[in-house]
Amino acid sequence: MPQQFHVSSLTGIFLLIFSAAGCPAQDHDRPIREVLQSQQAAWNRSDVEAFMSGYEASDATTFVGSSITRGYQRVLEDYHRRYPTKEKMGRLSFSEIEVKPLGAEFASVIGRWHLERDRASGGNVGGIFTLLLRKTPAGWKIILDHTS
Amino acid sequence: MPQQFHVSSLTGIFLLIFSAAGCPAQDHDRPIREVLQSQQAAWNRSDVEAFMSGYEASDATTFVGSSITRGYQRVLEDYHRRYPTKEKMGRLSFSEIEVKPLGAEFASVIGRWHLERDRASGGNVGGIFTLLLRKTPAGWKIILDHTS
Repeated sequence: MPQQFHVSSLTGIFLLIFSAAGCPAQDHDRPIREVLQSQQAAWNRSDVEAFMSGYEASDATTFVGSSITRGYQRVLEDYHRRYPTKEKMGRLSFSEIEVKPLGAEFASVIGRWHLERDRASGGNVGGIFTLLLRKTPAGWKIILDHTS
Repeated sequence: MPQQFHVSSLTGIFLLIFSAAGCPAQDHDRPIREVLQSQQAAWNRSDVEAFMSGYEASDATTFVGSSITRGYQRVLEDYHRRYPTKEKMGRLSFSEIEVKPLGAEFASVIGRWHLERDRASGGNVGGIFTLLLRKTPAGWKIILDHTS
């Protein structure tokens, strides 16, 4: 038992050191991770418009899937068309999110997405996405989404 | 005939104006387009190593396909494994290349790839790719490739 205590204390110290060292990276990543967390939450309350607010409201915003869709409005329409009901939207989760800064104004994200759905609504699906984000006056926004 | 001559002259003038206006963008794009042209040429002479020199020789270099492959060496090995012969490599062409600067040091590319192959070697395949490139002392290099 004393030894376990000892180990716990050591772990605590290591965690403290790790947290301090990890701070700048975490601070950089956090606003971008928050964009994705907000998207996930919006999707799971069936609010496609709020989900889309993670993307830049620009004609240049691009979604690459099986084809290339250009423009915020068209990407939004595509989401509505492909996921017309709460059941088709299912329950979205992101995982293995990796954020990489590209200078001060841009960043890339690689991650996995997973939709949990009833078999009648298409069943579970998932894959990998690469995002490009730009730091705008309204916060970090996705300008390019390649999802497969 | 005279009218055709007239049209040609006008086209010439328009081309001149267009070239002058388009110069800065073209200059920015050119080194990146050259990377892709070199890759295409290398592939089509079955030189996977030269093709790979378009990627940054780094452990962080990432290829996203049906799974995520990390590190230049692993990406190279994957290409060798998936395309072991000249016949399997086929004839590569890129099209609809679109370059977008992300600050001074990074750029993204969206484009289409097409492999022309005999049916016995897997037949024609193709898709869309998104690249992230970084301006390094050795020129522009791909640091992330999402191909689907």
